[in-house]
Amino acid sequence: MKISVRSQSMQASPIRKLVPFANEAKKRGTKVYHLNIGQPDIETPRVFMDAVKEADFDVLAYADSNGWEPLRESIARYYQRIGLPYETGDVIITNGGSEALQWALIIACDPGEEVLVPEPFYTNYRGFAAPYLAEIKPITTYPENGFALPGREVIESLITDKTRAFMLSNPGNPAGVVYSAQEVRMLADIARDRNLYIIADEVYREFCYDGKTATSFGSMTDILDRVIMIDSVSKRFSACGARIGSLTSKNRDVMTAALKLGQARLCAPTLEMIGSKALYDLDPDYFAPIRANYEERRNILIEALQDMDGVLCEKPGGAFYAIAKLPVDNAEDFAIWLLTDFELDGGTVMLAPVENFYQTPGMGVDEVRVAYVLNKEDLQEAMRILKAALAVYPGRKV
Amino acid sequence: MKISVRSQSMQASPIRKLVPFANEAKKRGTKVYHLNIGQPDIETPRVFMDAVKEADFDVLAYADSNGWEPLRESIARYYQRIGLPYETGDVIITNGGSEALQWALIIACDPGEEVLVPEPFYTNYRGFAAPYLAEIKPITTYPENGFALPGREVIESLITDKTRAFMLSNPGNPAGVVYSAQEVRMLADIARDRNLYIIADEVYREFCYDGKTATSFGSMTDILDRVIMIDSVSKRFSACGARIGSLTSKNRDVMTAALKLGQARLCAPTLEMIGSKALYDLDPDYFAPIRANYEERRNILIEALQDMDGVLCEKPGGAFYAIAKLPVDNAEDFAIWLLTDFELDGGTVMLAPVENFYQTPGMGVDEVRVAYVLNKEDLQEAMRILKAALAVYPGRKV
Repeated sequence: MKISVRSQSMQASPIRKLVPFANEAKKRGTKVYHLNIGQPDIETPRVFMDAVKEADFDVLAYADSNGWEPLRESIARYYQRIGLPYETGDVIITNGGSEALQWALIIACDPGEEVLVPEPFYTNYRGFAAPYLAEIKPITTYPENGFALPGREVIESLITDKTRAFMLSNPGNPAGVVYSAQEVRMLADIARDRNLYIIADEVYREFCYDGKTATSFGSMTDILDRVIMIDSVSKRFSACGARIGSLTSKNRDVMTAALKLGQARLCAPTLEMIGSKALYDLDPDYFAPIRANYEERRNILIEALQDMDGVLCEKPGGAFYAIAKLPVDNAEDFAIWLLTDFELDGGTVMLAPVENFYQTPGMGVDEVRVAYVLNKEDLQEAMRILKAALAVYPGRKV
Repeated sequence: MKISVRSQSMQASPIRKLVPFANEAKKRGTKVYHLNIGQPDIETPRVFMDAVKEADFDVLAYADSNGWEPLRESIARYYQRIGLPYETGDVIITNGGSEALQWALIIACDPGEEVLVPEPFYTNYRGFAAPYLAEIKPITTYPENGFALPGREVIESLITDKTRAFMLSNPGNPAGVVYSAQEVRMLADIARDRNLYIIADEVYREFCYDGKTATSFGSMTDILDRVIMIDSVSKRFSACGARIGSLTSKNRDVMTAALKLGQARLCAPTLEMIGSKALYDLDPDYFAPIRANYEERRNILIEALQDMDGVLCEKPGGAFYAIAKLPVDNAEDFAIWLLTDFELDGGTVMLAPVENFYQTPGMGVDEVRVAYVLNKEDLQEAMRILKAALAVYPGRKV
């Protein structure tokens, strides 16, 4: 039986691909410190389950295809609180930010059309684009200057008559980069002048450090009809398993198309929408201690990484990821070796090789993504292990 | 801003398209009997929420991309109880049967490739296929002979070098048809001889009447590698809002591709998977009274329809739908007229015009789908109203 070419061409998750090695290590009794996956350890606010438990129904019926209205209202209020002019009618609820990103690609692109994405990028972007035959064209960024965007001329040189959109996360996964207000404005200007959408994945919006904030594309009032805003409760409220996201836009054509896509799959899950409304209704003060917690972890992580011989890691400004360039021949080999051949005091570390977060072949072969989703003590121990491992790794570059 | 051609070409839900007229009628104080949508009124089993309320977690974390393993195990046991040889490893959990159907199309078809679908078909099939550019080619069936499949020669004449699969629901939506064992075997034979997949949407499996059962494609052991089995808790357990479905196959390549699609969107919603496991663990006796209830409703409905002058409606064998051919010029006009211009003792009826359930232009213009998802008394009243309306409808054909 033939499997479609597009299914064959999809990659298995590079984030999850080393899991069998980790499972073997655990079977041997080794404690594995998971720095490989963006699964926060922060407690999901209790209001989520409280609201779910209060749900009262005889028949768990279909919800509206554009989502449970009270949740849409709460999301609109959330946007208004942070100064973005979105209203209930601009919001449609999706099965996680993942579905919202897929819909944005379907709406912006016919097969063979292109989206420009700064690389390294969230590797699942590739999995979102592949079934729809949208093409991802990378805007290459580099660890040496903290993954800053190149200048306008470089970016414009990548635009072809097939280019339909920018797609980017800000704050960013996997590099934790927070684009400057100037960088955001530059992309907005290019989008306006070259007639492009901006698929703005801002799910890490609250996680910016050093007293800074991320400039939202939703605040660029002159290009609001071009912005397709993607959000999710997963990281924002540590509720990854809820699978509740949203697509938001002031563009009526985009919303009409999104509703048709919504109707085609009927609705998002009801109970999880009920719980998610309680999350969006939380006092905005909810974020301050969590942000402080992540910032402290980031500082521990970066200080430790920068203290390791031959490691390059510019301090990232947001999300809960950093990319470290390691003094190794191949980061995936090193990540596997950590799980198969190394331990220190009964523990080892699981990292995500970054090569597959780049579209350009050959980029990122000596880079890893580190997610700082562990508590302080575990993070410190993980860094101690990593340092010791790098010192003795046979594939170390000198 | 350009919207992609594929988004523009998607239809709005024909099932939901008359909703504004219904809302107007309700505002005027008219009671609307909803026969238009397959939302059962059967109570969702209490075990669903009981299981959800017992869920104990600090962090609502990502589930496995192939689904929560206890649910996959329970679904495998469910299949084994009904004599289908599926095991846990053959099952992946999806966001409703909708996502499972989409994945089956992605896996079977590259853009421009075709699936053969008996028409009239569940209109959302079109919405599943459109974003992926899979083409639906109809196998036309007719109300006059109870929507039976045509013979093998007719079906084979529709196969081209682009045909990749049959896709069909059995028992069927929208006609409530239960294909005979011979019809199922014929499709299996054609699939084997012509190298096609069978995308078997069997979500109404338990709802067969007159003491009959539906022959499952999962019981055709010689073609199991061709079968992509689609299931869902929505209709089976009256839990439409849970959005928990499954894709099941013995074909390893299909399952590998499905897992990659699963990883690309991370996982299905956690709480709803927990509740759904409790549903699949219900005693199989659960279905008997519900089946009896639907059968009684069907009998009331069909008897009433057959009693109306000029109405053609062969008794359907399963699901909870029937298609009635009405003595009207245009069924959609009639359905709108019912909502805008007619009432009897304060009530009117909402029907689903069937034209959009056909792919062939001009088919089904005088047909409606009736879902018998109301209690007996409401159903009887709805039939009384429909009979009175048909008698006075200005567009009545004589």
